[in-house]
Amino acid sequence: MKNEKILLVNRPKGAPAKSDFKFEPAAVSELDNGEVLVKTIYLSVDPYMRGRMNDRKSYVPPYKLNEVISGGIVGQVVQSRSAELAEGDFVIGNLGWQKYNTVSDVSVRKLDPSLAPLTTHLGVLGMTGLTAYFGLLDIGNPQEGETVVVSGAAGAVGTIVGQIAKIKGARVVGIAGSDEKTAYLKNELGFDEAINYKTENVFEALKSACPDGVDVYFDNVGGEISDSVLSSINKGARIAICGQIALYNLEKMDVGPRIQSQLLINSALMKGFIVSDYAAHFEEGAVQLAKWLKEGKLSYSENIVEGFEHTVDAFLGLFSGENTGKQLVKVAEPENL
Amino acid sequence: MKNEKILLVNRPKGAPAKSDFKFEPAAVSELDNGEVLVKTIYLSVDPYMRGRMNDRKSYVPPYKLNEVISGGIVGQVVQSRSAELAEGDFVIGNLGWQKYNTVSDVSVRKLDPSLAPLTTHLGVLGMTGLTAYFGLLDIGNPQEGETVVVSGAAGAVGTIVGQIAKIKGARVVGIAGSDEKTAYLKNELGFDEAINYKTENVFEALKSACPDGVDVYFDNVGGEISDSVLSSINKGARIAICGQIALYNLEKMDVGPRIQSQLLINSALMKGFIVSDYAAHFEEGAVQLAKWLKEGKLSYSENIVEGFEHTVDAFLGLFSGENTGKQLVKVAEPENL
Repeated sequence: MKNEKILLVNRPKGAPAKSDFKFEPAAVSELDNGEVLVKTIYLSVDPYMRGRMNDRKSYVPPYKLNEVISGGIVGQVVQSRSAELAEGDFVIGNLGWQKYNTVSDVSVRKLDPSLAPLTTHLGVLGMTGLTAYFGLLDIGNPQEGETVVVSGAAGAVGTIVGQIAKIKGARVVGIAGSDEKTAYLKNELGFDEAINYKTENVFEALKSACPDGVDVYFDNVGGEISDSVLSSINKGARIAICGQIALYNLEKMDVGPRIQSQLLINSALMKGFIVSDYAAHFEEGAVQLAKWLKEGKLSYSENIVEGFEHTVDAFLGLFSGENTGKQLVKVAEPENL
Repeated sequence: MKNEKILLVNRPKGAPAKSDFKFEPAAVSELDNGEVLVKTIYLSVDPYMRGRMNDRKSYVPPYKLNEVISGGIVGQVVQSRSAELAEGDFVIGNLGWQKYNTVSDVSVRKLDPSLAPLTTHLGVLGMTGLTAYFGLLDIGNPQEGETVVVSGAAGAVGTIVGQIAKIKGARVVGIAGSDEKTAYLKNELGFDEAINYKTENVFEALKSACPDGVDVYFDNVGGEISDSVLSSINKGARIAICGQIALYNLEKMDVGPRIQSQLLINSALMKGFIVSDYAAHFEEGAVQLAKWLKEGKLSYSENIVEGFEHTVDAFLGLFSGENTGKQLVKVAEPENL
């Protein structure tokens, strides 16, 4: 059994680069009582991980240098000394970026592969879907007929945000980075309007896409795109700060128009969040998302790269604005156990 | 009966100037049924009025050019054709900056001068006190042992914010613009620490004044002072945006570090507000403030300029950082009616 892992060997300055990572052979340790050996089937790469690569306070503790990177993984138990998990079981957990992880059975959760495709647990039914669900509904709280704007709209979280906003009866405007993406948002996901920030003047495009102004803004990107959205908010607007991709990769301070006056004039609310703020309510969110998925009200898009050796490229691709939907790496086929 | 009024004759660019205002004689119209003639006793000048002098969307509709400015006034009914208000009654309302206003009796509220000094209705028991009360308690929601920072701390709203935060058991740090003010905050009002932003490095001073970080920030000023506070916030911090004095007077866009990443990393909330957002709860707030005042838990500071002719100077003084507490103009003595 050949194991391999991916280490963080440099803290990126600005955009992460291939040279910040290193592939290395890894041992497979003997199982203790209560432990299982999990073979990685799908591995999730997410924008928030960039924050963990800095050596400073962020959402979650920084990754350690020269140690294996960790993230969401769907795997299969291939050896077990656990009473709870049998060989062949599928599990999800926050595990190392390696082909095999030896872990305590309490650090993973068993999945039923007959209920939904395995990959959905890393996407629409997992942290991605829950991020969209709680950020939009708890902070944004869109009402029927209101206008919701989503940036990074074609990304994993953005696509779900827009669809939930539609379910809630809002007018939904997405901002994304290509004509293919804007067409996808409008034609496949039912967004009312979509703006290509690379070819359109976002400020002007928003004016025509949001004739009644912006009531809710779900912000996945920050920077100048957000400046434009914020200049169009209505009285009582709610802004959920989910990600700031532009910022992850900046070496110097990100400077822009101060937004406090906009919040003041509009009695508007802005709140940052991370999905773990809502951990106590995950069950409720997951049940609702699964229901919508089953009812056909939620579509999801996955971009699956094959091969552990492409993990770093898949991660780097998140920051070039090229991906649509949830970015996953398929590391191995499930085994018949 | 000689009447006089103050008109806005230019929309200020940047800091307001004397030449933006004009004193002019005014007529005293005959009373219709249900109307009263109100003699102005005290007149309130407030920072928010600067926003209304711009011809653009703000808290409240802009003042019209070449028309009388309006604001909070405590006056006395000197003529009445109202069944509700008698000559001699004291009233409060949003009235014109003039010596006499003819108004419908429903547009003012009767005051009982035996319950509290007349001026308190324009300050600690009025919109000023309610602004502090709702902004701090609804948005900031300080808990016992948390650290609350207030900018513009020696101003009318700031002094009340700090005292309410102390009542709630928080550690309170004020930021103000002179050693006299910081001494006043600490020695008279019981603030735990006070920072003079004109002589101290606010960022460094905050670090030592807030060893456990900042949980609540009540922002009356914005700009670089707020940048410093925001760089010290804790996970779950709440920021109430009450005023942005620096901004009122800027001609060009106010630019600074983008704050979204700070809000994101800390799952922090920032909300702008204006006291009228809480109109449905004014009664509750006023009762509580009056109770604290009676119990001696709230001190208030007034700066009273005598003479209608000094109204404009009193208003301009709000922006020079010189005033402490509520700025009022005493226009006339009450009459014995």
